[in-house]
Amino acid sequence: MSWEENVRKVVPYTPGEQPKVKNIIKLNTNENPYPPAPAVVEALKNMDAESFKKYPDPTCDVLVEAIADFYEVDKENVFVGVGSDDVLAMAFMTFFNSDKPVLFPDITYSFYDVWAELFRIPYKQIPLLDDFSVRIEDYFGENGGVVLANPNAPTGAQLPIDAVEEVIKRNPDVVVIVDEAYADFGGQSVLPLIDKYDNLLVVQTFSKSRSMAGMRIGYAFGCKKLIKYLLDVKFAYNSYTMNMPALELGSLAIKDRAYFEKTVSMIVNTRERVKKELRGLGFEFADSKTNFVFAKHKEKSGKEIFDYLRANNIIVRRWDAPRIKEHLRISIGTDEEMDILIAKLKEFLG
Amino acid sequence: MSWEENVRKVVPYTPGEQPKVKNIIKLNTNENPYPPAPAVVEALKNMDAESFKKYPDPTCDVLVEAIADFYEVDKENVFVGVGSDDVLAMAFMTFFNSDKPVLFPDITYSFYDVWAELFRIPYKQIPLLDDFSVRIEDYFGENGGVVLANPNAPTGAQLPIDAVEEVIKRNPDVVVIVDEAYADFGGQSVLPLIDKYDNLLVVQTFSKSRSMAGMRIGYAFGCKKLIKYLLDVKFAYNSYTMNMPALELGSLAIKDRAYFEKTVSMIVNTRERVKKELRGLGFEFADSKTNFVFAKHKEKSGKEIFDYLRANNIIVRRWDAPRIKEHLRISIGTDEEMDILIAKLKEFLG
Repeated sequence: MSWEENVRKVVPYTPGEQPKVKNIIKLNTNENPYPPAPAVVEALKNMDAESFKKYPDPTCDVLVEAIADFYEVDKENVFVGVGSDDVLAMAFMTFFNSDKPVLFPDITYSFYDVWAELFRIPYKQIPLLDDFSVRIEDYFGENGGVVLANPNAPTGAQLPIDAVEEVIKRNPDVVVIVDEAYADFGGQSVLPLIDKYDNLLVVQTFSKSRSMAGMRIGYAFGCKKLIKYLLDVKFAYNSYTMNMPALELGSLAIKDRAYFEKTVSMIVNTRERVKKELRGLGFEFADSKTNFVFAKHKEKSGKEIFDYLRANNIIVRRWDAPRIKEHLRISIGTDEEMDILIAKLKEFLG
Repeated sequence: MSWEENVRKVVPYTPGEQPKVKNIIKLNTNENPYPPAPAVVEALKNMDAESFKKYPDPTCDVLVEAIADFYEVDKENVFVGVGSDDVLAMAFMTFFNSDKPVLFPDITYSFYDVWAELFRIPYKQIPLLDDFSVRIEDYFGENGGVVLANPNAPTGAQLPIDAVEEVIKRNPDVVVIVDEAYADFGGQSVLPLIDKYDNLLVVQTFSKSRSMAGMRIGYAFGCKKLIKYLLDVKFAYNSYTMNMPALELGSLAIKDRAYFEKTVSMIVNTRERVKKELRGLGFEFADSKTNFVFAKHKEKSGKEIFDYLRANNIIVRRWDAPRIKEHLRISIGTDEEMDILIAKLKEFLG
């Protein structure tokens, strides 16, 4: 007998590489190429380090209120956490305690099955169709919960809102999590449905469209009862999840609607241009509604292209998983960064 | 059938009040009255908000290295999290998966039973002796793990290192967590024992002796195998727990040994003086080795004194729990703050 016998042994999620060297074009973790809103830059200069000696507000009021204001919901509809990963992990722990399997696609955010394993939640991965689209009827059977990323990652494909609503409506007895990490780039959200369906949790993040990946802020919307359950678990795990800079700077980041809309639209414009260029170079992909393109080349292998780019100081993301091993997930950077990517691809493919 | 049936229902921990008004002497959550190290103040001024657009380093290298350097251990002996609450919660989840009960005192940090309930871990609360001391023989029987806060909270009492070692040695088949949140004020740590016992996890925090409660940084030491298991669970929960300010400023805070020693010694001096004053006013308490005193008055009820202080803008902490309802936990603030406290107590008691 040893203490090791009682260890919860898990196979952890592998995050994308965060290289420590400079002069790299980093298109591997879907970060935003633009800086955070100007008010964040300004407030950081005036932040009072002495205030760090006190605990932060455990209710995260300033941030919750700013999010509620922006989205025109009540504060009691909002939950915040240390990135959407923290929010999703707590949601899995809070809502998925059935003997029936939680359902999510086989190709989706690869943390879902890791959380299910961590919390010993039964789950079933449902194959996407060959074009990487979701067949919603696959989510109508008996289950312990449903998780859909919309737009999906790493495919970039977006389900119409009506289809997502149909999944929520057909599953009144379980919680349906809609992970909208990339929804700002697709222009659609099921947020308005939280008043209609008490089993809906909508999860979003500051890491992509808000340029704050380094600050670790995620948030979720749901009916008040559902958010209350999530808050209870949060307060049973860690009273103070969000530190002072996250609370203060996060609340400022979300207030600047004009900057947010401008930078999102810049990324969307770059994405649409890059799509055309990639198609011209022989890449195929589902229509992306995110800040990345998940593309496969008609002739060259994913590994070859990945290695060539890496050797040229451009990092994209790829997985060795069966159905997607020829694909590359390429984040949308600035126009200048994407020009260099395209030029390098032309060199290699042309 | 409703989704509510599968909710993990918990009774959350209640953190101490964080009042939003100013002009309050806040002695209720054991915060440090002195600002963080000067290098933190300086680095905050020069922090680059643009860097927030990228994810932080998931391995938390800069912080882990600074902690390893300060304590002269290897990086692989160090784990960091979002406050020691996050570290402890992950440790409970990682190491306490036995059918036998985890043991901890009845009067101790009141988050332990909350985590046990959250993760459905069987546990047994062992009564402290009447003088609030731990009888170590109570922890020698069959169990699923042991958790000892040393010095203990909210009692402030410290077990000798030899006694803690005896508990660790008698429990080779389970993990023994020694929660040393307040150890810097008592001058003793079991950290040197991590090389001798592979079942020992020592947990500390930046929230008390490091003046960084608002930054949410906790850390733990253990043998490399034990830390690796903890890291696996962390990476199965949230890849990026620590945000950029926490990593950068935390690493600077820990490097300034002179400032740390100076402020800790100021607090210890104030504590020793306050103890004398409190005794003179008719308070009784176990000898505190922390930055608080857990005191009971010979005549007046805890509630009465608490209410009087609260009405005079001084917040201390008290619980309505059976064995400690007459006690007040009074954090050690600056000399000026403690002078006002003593003056108010004299007014009330005198």
